[in-house]
Parts: sequence; structure tokens; C-alpha cells
Amino acid sequence: MVTSSSNGLTSTESWTLLSLSAACFGILANTFHGDGEPLIASIAFSGIAFSFTYALIRWLGNTFMKAGLKGRDMCKTRTTEIPETMGAICAIVYLMTVIIFIPFPFYKDIVAATSGGGNRDLVLSVEHVETGRFLHKFPHSKLASYLSAILSLQVVVLLGIGDDLFDIRWRHKVFIPVIAAIPMLIVYFVDFGVTEIVIPTPIRPYLGELFDLGWLYYAYMILLSIFCPNSINILAGVNGLEVSQSIVIALLIILNDALYLSPFTRYPHPATDSHLFSIYLLLPFVGVSLALWFHNWYPAKVFVGDTYCYFAGMVLAVVAIQGHFSKTLILLFIPQAANWVYSMPQIFGLVTCPRHRLPRFNARTGLLEPSTAEFKQPLKRVVAQSLKLLHKLRLIRVTLDEQGEVTGCTNMTLINLWIVWFGPMREDRLVMGLMGLQTACGLLGLWVRHRLALLIFTQDNW
Amino acid sequence: MVTSSSNGLTSTESWTLLSLSAACFGILANTFHGDGEPLIASIAFSGIAFSFTYALIRWLGNTFMKAGLKGRDMCKTRTTEIPETMGAICAIVYLMTVIIFIPFPFYKDIVAATSGGGNRDLVLSVEHVETGRFLHKFPHSKLASYLSAILSLQVVVLLGIGDDLFDIRWRHKVFIPVIAAIPMLIVYFVDFGVTEIVIPTPIRPYLGELFDLGWLYYAYMILLSIFCPNSINILAGVNGLEVSQSIVIALLIILNDALYLSPFTRYPHPATDSHLFSIYLLLPFVGVSLALWFHNWYPAKVFVGDTYCYFAGMVLAVVAIQGHFSKTLILLFIPQAANWVYSMPQIFGLVTCPRHRLPRFNARTGLLEPSTAEFKQPLKRVVAQSLKLLHKLRLIRVTLDEQGEVTGCTNMTLINLWIVWFGPMREDRLVMGLMGLQTACGLLGLWVRHRLALLIFTQDNW
Repeated sequence: MVTSSSNGLTSTESWTLLSLSAACFGILANTFHGDGEPLIASIAFSGIAFSFTYALIRWLGNTFMKAGLKGRDMCKTRTTEIPETMGAICAIVYLMTVIIFIPFPFYKDIVAATSGGGNRDLVLSVEHVETGRFLHKFPHSKLASYLSAILSLQVVVLLGIGDDLFDIRWRHKVFIPVIAAIPMLIVYFVDFGVTEIVIPTPIRPYLGELFDLGWLYYAYMILLSIFCPNSINILAGVNGLEVSQSIVIALLIILNDALYLSPFTRYPHPATDSHLFSIYLLLPFVGVSLALWFHNWYPAKVFVGDTYCYFAGMVLAVVAIQGHFSKTLILLFIPQAANWVYSMPQIFGLVTCPRHRLPRFNARTGLLEPSTAEFKQPLKRVVAQSLKLLHKLRLIRVTLDEQGEVTGCTNMTLINLWIVWFGPMREDRLVMGLMGLQTACGLLGLWVRHRLALLIFTQDNW
Repeated sequence: MVTSSSNGLTSTESWTLLSLSAACFGILANTFHGDGEPLIASIAFSGIAFSFTYALIRWLGNTFMKAGLKGRDMCKTRTTEIPETMGAICAIVYLMTVIIFIPFPFYKDIVAATSGGGNRDLVLSVEHVETGRFLHKFPHSKLASYLSAILSLQVVVLLGIGDDLFDIRWRHKVFIPVIAAIPMLIVYFVDFGVTEIVIPTPIRPYLGELFDLGWLYYAYMILLSIFCPNSINILAGVNGLEVSQSIVIALLIILNDALYLSPFTRYPHPATDSHLFSIYLLLPFVGVSLALWFHNWYPAKVFVGDTYCYFAGMVLAVVAIQGHFSKTLILLFIPQAANWVYSMPQIFGLVTCPRHRLPRFNARTGLLEPSTAEFKQPLKRVVAQSLKLLHKLRLIRVTLDEQGEVTGCTNMTLINLWIVWFGPMREDRLVMGLMGLQTACGLLGLWVRHRLALLIFTQDNW
């Protein structure tokens, strides 16, 4: 086993990573023909990004520790210090990957524009060349929106690193994603982004088929940018949880994207391009996240830091906003949304909220148990009754004194609730359980989106 | 006097910054008419950026110190610790400013496209609307190149902060700007950037009027990106020097840009747009740099960090590359180039190079004296003779032992040379002298560029 102080790769790891990289470079070199193969190239890039991230996390661990970016794992018997903020490495490798990838989706257009053809699609447009319309072929808006997505992600990483370094106050850091959303929103605005939404059939008589939300659409995009990163940041604190949930959601979006590509749909579907771009942004994300996952999974050898949560949440938000499938994304965030709603009584102070609400580590059994909030003074009658009701519904577990008064309850997080339901368990079992839930909810969400959408819309845009 | 431990603004400062910001917001609100007034808006944004940076540097000083970003000033009698890496604040305020500024230069195009006119320029192009050419009016390439410039600057800031945190090795960090240049080069490539250069008249018979450099043009851009940030990073180490030289060079470029705008030239000059964009990127840079300057000037209350040097050099390189006036930029970097050439014998190990080559602080007089390299073993005859020759030319000062052998010489940096020439002086006088030199060289460079260019080119593109 590699201990946390070792910062080299084992020779097996080195050879695996080298072989993987070599294979990916080989695949990449073979994509320069015909229209180019951006999808294949994206897969190859993701493999390379995985290898780089994996190696860099190992190599830079000690450097991060020396710079003071380190922390202790409170859910272990031995609490040695391990590197913190390793999500920053992920993020930077990711950003460089998607930047270097820029030419690939436009390869077809570049070849067409520079060689003047030799390309089946373009024989048709020779007359367009003469009338000047040919120049439109280059998808400038796509390029601008791709660049603005990268800009937003860079801002969130910069501010995320700032948060990890300076430990920004909670009420300030909630707004980090708002600042990061600005580049995307501004380019959306400058480049004539659509602010219209399709109206569900039942209310069409009142609002028409399309409704222009105008600036409200921008407000909606900002809210989504706040929701995704922060909800990942709140459902966190157990080895591997932040990375696992991000990977599961990303894979579900990729699955949804794949439904819009041939052979699943008639080619070319009007939304194919949006979903391709979503895949191009998500595959490398899965690559770098997997590399982090191997180091952050139980027992964690590194911590991911707030940087990773903001970065991951923002990748998912950006992809959904630019791909115009934000409602679908919300369906994939149901466990996070549930965690958020479930936390409300503590966040808004109806019930005491301790500084940390992580499960309690029982050093004797090695298992995690629900952590509890203790009430110093008697609760209001209505609150006490509500807690007892929740206890009966098995949504929390309360502790009573001899008079039958509520003196404490389990902290209201999905993590604690899982342990309330299924009993004390080891950290990795807990995360596996939660990921099962995440996957099930996500698949159900996608099924609802594609099957039941027909009940309220005239057609599924699939 | 504000001491380095105080982190509040004085009430005079608060009121000045508030008034300045209010005035700038007022000006900004008045730019939304006709074609918009992007130049006025840019000036207003720069004022706001100045105020924000000034206040943030004061407010966040202690936070940076707590996170370990601090250093001691070796050229002072009392060496208290002061905050380091404050250039990161500059850079982040700058990036947010230029991002929020994006819609302003395109205001005209947005109004035209959304309202369909009411705009004098566009009455002419109604027929273009019908033939589909109207859509070209939106300057997509400009938007893409502006976005790619911001992307490159963000990468350099991310890596610069990494350097300040982890103290990357010298031979690695030279290449930080290469990585940062990638987004700009890639978008340049994707968006069909020009790789042709105008050939000077004397060699036109051999090469023709235009010569396509192809990939060599990209190599040239990379070299420029390496040169600018690193040469600022090398001519550094004295209070205020990094910021002052960056501001002087930026102002000289703005002066040069202004020559392309009305009333100095017939409007519209073909290069007007490029030079406008250069001004839009430089004015906020001067704003944030001035705010840093007030804190970094002798006696420094904060240090700028490598982040600032990379960021500043990259802003200048990016502006020149995207504005296609990189030769002019090189003329403005003559002192930096001279410092580089002058340092060569020490960098390449012909002469001993101590770890630090900063001037020596004489605590008795409070003045800076040239620092020296001492030779442990006798020099090769040719090296010794060369050093003696340089001494006679007053380009270094050597120390001799009783036998007339060279035992040491002043370190080969422009900073030491200035003290060799003009005698020991206080830190601020030294920087003022060097800035006089920078300004004089720059003005001479611009004069050469515009007057003497006609000797080797058929026309000055002014």
C-alpha cells in the first residue's frame, strides 16, 4: 500500500499510465482525417488528462503539504496529515485539456476554410462561397460559447483556490459561483443567446408556445450556477463522496447526451451539436475526476478541497446551461436538492446546528455513526412535536430524557440519514450506498424526462 | 503614516475612493447612447478597478500574511514582514473588469442587431441584411480574440499564484508563459489568424512583399510571451520597480495606440480597431497597477510577487500580439533586453553568479550600493581581461587584490550598473532613475518606429 508520505508512482502505476498515455496519443494522431473525429479525440484527451492528473497528484502531494495545504482525516483511527486542495490539480489539468482540445471540434471547418474543400459536405456550398454566405459556415457562436465556458471555469478555480487558501466566510463563498458565471452570461448576452422557453401544453392558452423570459432567464442561470457547486459542497466530508457524486452525475449527463447522437437518433438532430459539446466538456472532467477518485477514495490519501466542489459543480452547470438542458440537470441533482431541503431546519436555526455535522467515527468499531445535535435548552412545543413526528417517519432519530422531552437529534444531512436507516457502517460502504441512491434517482430522472415529458410538452426534443 | 499591520483605509482614502468610484459609475451610466462610448467606458472601468484594487490590497493584507504569503524587505533597517503576492489581487480585479467590459465594445453591434437600426452607420447596410451579409457585421473574430486574450491571462495568473505558493524551480517557471500562451495561439489558429509579415523594402526582391511565416509565426509569438513576463521578473527586486516599469511601458503603448485614433489620423484607419482593443485591455491594467504601485512604492507596504510580473508581462505581450504591433513592443522593452544581455555572463556561468544579485543595503547610510560577486578561484585570463575592459568602459566595477588580479566585480544587472554610474542612492531615487531611462528609451523607440520605419518599409502603417 502506498502511504501518504510517499510521493512517487509505483512502477506498475508508471507503466500503466505511460501505456495509457501512449495509446491515447496514438488514437489522437489518427483523428486527423476526413471531417476529423472530435469525439474519439475527446476520449483520447480524457485518457491523457487522467494519466497526467494521477501522476501530478502523487508528485505534488508533498509540495502542497509544505505550502500548508494539508488536513487531518477525522474519521480514521490514525489521523496523520494528508494533502488538501488536490482538486486544484484536477482543475488545472482539465482546463489545459479543454483549451488544447479547442481546434478538434472545429477541424472540419478549418480544413474546409483553408483547403477550400475535398470535403463531401462542402461541395454543396460552393455557390455559397461566391455569395459570401460561406463564411457563416464557421461556427463562431459555438467557439465563443466554448471559450466563455472555459473562462467561467477558470474564474471558479481561481476563486476556489482563494477560498481554500484564505478560508473565506460561508456567507461570502456561497456567491463565488455567481462571479464565475459572469463571463458565461456576458458572452451569452453579447452573442444573442436565446432567452425564450418552451411553455408546457396545459398553460399554452395563456402564455403562447414560446415565452421570452428576458432578464429572468439570466437570473435563472445564476441560480443554477449557485445551486450546483454549493449543493456538491454541502453533500461532502466523507472520503470520496464529492468526487463520486460528480462522476455519477457527469456519466448520467453523458448517457443523456449519447441519446442525441447516432445511432440512437436520426442524424443530424437539431440538438446534436449542443450535446456533442457537452460530451467534449464532460469526458475530460470524468478523466481528471477519476484520477482524483483513486486518491480520495477510502482510505483517502488526499483531500479534494473546496476548489474541487466549486469546479465540479460549475462544470455541470456550465454544460447544462450552454447545452440548454438545465431542467434535465436538476433531475440529476435530486439527492443534493433533497439534502438541501432536509438541512433547512438546521441552516435556518429552527434546530441547533453544530459547527460540523459529519458522522461520528467510532474508533472501537471502525464504523461511522450518526452525529447528533444536543439541545441546551428545552425546545418550543411545536418544534419538539415535529421532531418526534420525523422520528416516527424514520427521517431523524431523537434522544429523549426521562420526562420524554427531546434533548437531541441526529444532524439533518443525507449522510446521517443514511446511517439512521441502515445502521453504523464503514465510510466506503456509506459512500457506495449514497452513490447507489444517486444513480437510481438519476436514471429515474432521465426516464421521467424522456417518457413523461410528453404529458406536458407536445414533443420530447430527443 | 499607515503601518504595515494596519489593514483599514484611512477616512481620507475611503472618501477619495468612494468619490472616484461614484464619478466613474456616473460616467459609465452615460455611455449607453448612440454607438456607445467604449473608450469612455473603459476609462471609467479603470477608475473603478483602481478603487477596488486599492481597497482590497489594504483589506486583504493580513489575510495573505495569515496564509503564509509574506516576506521581509532586505533593503530596510527594520525588516518587519509584509504581505507578498499582492499582484494576485490586481490580476483578479483586472480579469473581472475586462470580463464585465466585454459588452461595451460590441454595444454598437448588439444595438444594431437587436433593434435593427436607428443607427446611422447601418442604414447603409440594409441591402446587406437582405443578402445575408449583414450577419458579418458582428465582429465574431474580435470577440474570440478578446476572449482568448482573457483566457491566456487567467492561465498565467493561475500558474503565477502556483509559483508564489510552491516556489517552482527557475528552469521550470521560465516556461509558465508558454503554457499561458496556448489559449491565445489556439484561438488564433482556429480563427484563421494572419501569419504573414510585411517584408522590408531592401529584401523584397528576394522574398516578395508579404511572406507567410506559417508555424514560425507561432514560434515567434511564443518567444515574445516568454520574453515579456520573464524580463520583467528579472529586472525586479527593488521597491516599486516591477510595477513602475509595467506602468511606463503600458502608458507608452497607450500613447502609440492613441496615434491611430482620431483626431491624430483619418478615421477610420484600418488599424484603429486593433489599437482600440489594445487600449481597452491596457487602461484597466494601468488602473489596477497604479493601485498596487501606491502600496509597493518605497517604503513598500506590500510585495507584488511573481504573479504580478507574469501577469504584467503577459498583458503587454497579449496586447501586442493581438494588435499586431509586436515589433513596436520590443522597442519599448529595450532596457529589459539590455538587462538580459548584460546578465548573460552570469546567467551562463562565465562569471560567478550569487543566488541574489540585488543591490546591497548599507544600514549606516540608508543607501543602496552595488552588490558584488566574489571569485573563489582565479579567473581565466581572457575573462579577467574582459572584465577589466568592461571596468574601463564603466560597465562594471571590479575589485583587485595586491597583485592586480580580479577578485570580484559588481553583479551584472541594470540596477547595479545604475548605482555604479551614479553612486550609492536611496531605493526610490534608484527606481526613479531607471524609470527615466525606461521612458526615454521608450519615446526614442516610438520615434524610431514611426519616423525611421519609412527607410525600410514603403509606408508607416500609422
